[in-house]
Amino acid sequence: MRELQVNLRDRSYPIYIGEGILDEIASLFEKHDIRKASPLMIVTDEHVAPVYLDRITQSLMAGGYQVASYVVAAGERSKALSVLEDIIGAALDAGLDRSSAIVALGGGVVGDLAGFVAASYMRGIRFVQIPTTILAHDSSVGGKVAVNHPKAKNIIGAFHQPELVLYDTATLRTLPEREIRAGLSEMIKHGLIWDAEFTAWLDQHAEEILALEHDKLEYGLYMGCQVKAYVVSQDEKENDLRAILNLGHTIGHALEAVAGYNELLHGEAISIGMVGSAKLAVRMGRSVRIYTETKRILAKFGLPVRLPEHLDTDRIMKAMMHDKKFKEGRTVFVLPTEIGRVEINKQVPVEWVREVVEELKREA
Amino acid sequence: MRELQVNLRDRSYPIYIGEGILDEIASLFEKHDIRKASPLMIVTDEHVAPVYLDRITQSLMAGGYQVASYVVAAGERSKALSVLEDIIGAALDAGLDRSSAIVALGGGVVGDLAGFVAASYMRGIRFVQIPTTILAHDSSVGGKVAVNHPKAKNIIGAFHQPELVLYDTATLRTLPEREIRAGLSEMIKHGLIWDAEFTAWLDQHAEEILALEHDKLEYGLYMGCQVKAYVVSQDEKENDLRAILNLGHTIGHALEAVAGYNELLHGEAISIGMVGSAKLAVRMGRSVRIYTETKRILAKFGLPVRLPEHLDTDRIMKAMMHDKKFKEGRTVFVLPTEIGRVEINKQVPVEWVREVVEELKREA
Repeated sequence: MRELQVNLRDRSYPIYIGEGILDEIASLFEKHDIRKASPLMIVTDEHVAPVYLDRITQSLMAGGYQVASYVVAAGERSKALSVLEDIIGAALDAGLDRSSAIVALGGGVVGDLAGFVAASYMRGIRFVQIPTTILAHDSSVGGKVAVNHPKAKNIIGAFHQPELVLYDTATLRTLPEREIRAGLSEMIKHGLIWDAEFTAWLDQHAEEILALEHDKLEYGLYMGCQVKAYVVSQDEKENDLRAILNLGHTIGHALEAVAGYNELLHGEAISIGMVGSAKLAVRMGRSVRIYTETKRILAKFGLPVRLPEHLDTDRIMKAMMHDKKFKEGRTVFVLPTEIGRVEINKQVPVEWVREVVEELKREA
Repeated sequence: MRELQVNLRDRSYPIYIGEGILDEIASLFEKHDIRKASPLMIVTDEHVAPVYLDRITQSLMAGGYQVASYVVAAGERSKALSVLEDIIGAALDAGLDRSSAIVALGGGVVGDLAGFVAASYMRGIRFVQIPTTILAHDSSVGGKVAVNHPKAKNIIGAFHQPELVLYDTATLRTLPEREIRAGLSEMIKHGLIWDAEFTAWLDQHAEEILALEHDKLEYGLYMGCQVKAYVVSQDEKENDLRAILNLGHTIGHALEAVAGYNELLHGEAISIGMVGSAKLAVRMGRSVRIYTETKRILAKFGLPVRLPEHLDTDRIMKAMMHDKKFKEGRTVFVLPTEIGRVEINKQVPVEWVREVVEELKREA
């Protein structure tokens, strides 16, 4: 078991990563001040519930916890205020009070949704993350929680740090292959923005990671969390540095919105977005090698690098204009300057963005 | 103009109180770092909008601000997630970004709702309060913002401090008399929990205050805000001391819920609740004078001290069980120990609460 500390002064918390660590859930909860006198609520989705909910509930009850649960539909549509309201109704019925905790058991959608429940229920209660996807290695670090608005993704939310994160790599073995690949997209991003050495390691071990070979997977998750944790600890509220984590996300979020949250998984959309950012970087005068390497590595992990042709460019551009990263009306982009390093560039002409979106439809 | 500072370290902010200070709104916004490059959104209700919205919008635009606005229905029903979602949609359309501010123009409902919009839009943007009721002298200090759930009041929310509060006493002159009386209920509460001298001053000047005599009103608001600000600065997140502000609120919130948020105004409900707390205090062995004085002062301000007989005791008790102040299953009450001083009492038998609710229906 590896342990990693996310340093945020009085909101610091540990991430435990390892095979089978869910067996120790009750003692880890106890160690981190999750109260037994008040009921917990596990929030999960219909895919994860049949596999883990009973087992975790039993372990916690055996450890002396009172456990309620709420199961949402799988997928992005559950990140809605109406679902939040339903969960809060169930939490009231189950008697959750200000000393209770919300436990997010699942992927990024469940983490974002349950995290915002925890942030807003009685103005904020404790929160524990149990990610069951590779993608969630990203979303479980940093405390960004949110639901979607019909007009824009992740626009209603909070910064709410968990008490602890339990990352049992055994839960990843049941993931569909497409989700594994999509999840690795954020791991590759962490290499691309911060760590050329980790990027080279990912490149070298792509096959073993895709096969979920234990050591490689654990190290990859550990390193991905490490980069994220370092950046977040420097800038919890996304005033400056933290924005570099958005590499590929400005285009990526717009693609998700236009594709209706269904056609493209988040990791796939940001894979295409990262190729787009590399293309913009080249236009801004950076080495063409950034583009070829970014694209080659993403393709090696089986991630898409071409934008589906039928997605309308006008709609993509419009969705981007709603993106919260367009600060004070200017067009702000995270652009690579070399492999393992990025910059926040506020001078990207909107016209170039449009041209790159068009070009991405013709990537080989 | 009086100025009062709410001390919360890096989230400290000023409250300006005075007649006609809305004329200086643009310069006060500028002084407190409200940005001109990003649009503002004023959130108000259908009662306040016709009187002040145009004037304030014009003043701000003359000062170089871009101003959007959103008008909600008056009353507690606007404190709902569906209304929050509509406002956030309008904020997106108006182009509000992370440097924008939400301006709450109105009473407690508008402040709570607009405050939670500001707390959750893009995970938190700036917030300005312009209270137009006496009651809002209470809710505009302390950063507690929330909307209601169909099952419980104020259960979905955040702590989100404003950048500044502008309290123009001229706006209070158009209030209906019933709302003036109800608003003074929280001001009296601030005396009862913290300051015997201020309570005596209120007792002595009841008539002038009810007539909205300028000097007396301004001093009363200033002192009410002062008590609230002091308590909040000692305990921003309501871990202990801050709970004393809930005098009368446990019973009061239950009455509001059962009466359907219509029959009783908030201040009226907590007036009855404060009489109930005084009765519980006497049962716990305190001087009967606490009860007679509390009741006499509230009645002097024309506030109700008797619980409407038709409200069902079982439903009131059930609503109280949902109240978030029942920590870890125990029955916690704020009880007076003398005039100007209260305690958090965790030993109040639920049976006594029920008996007091019954007795309150028979108050003379």
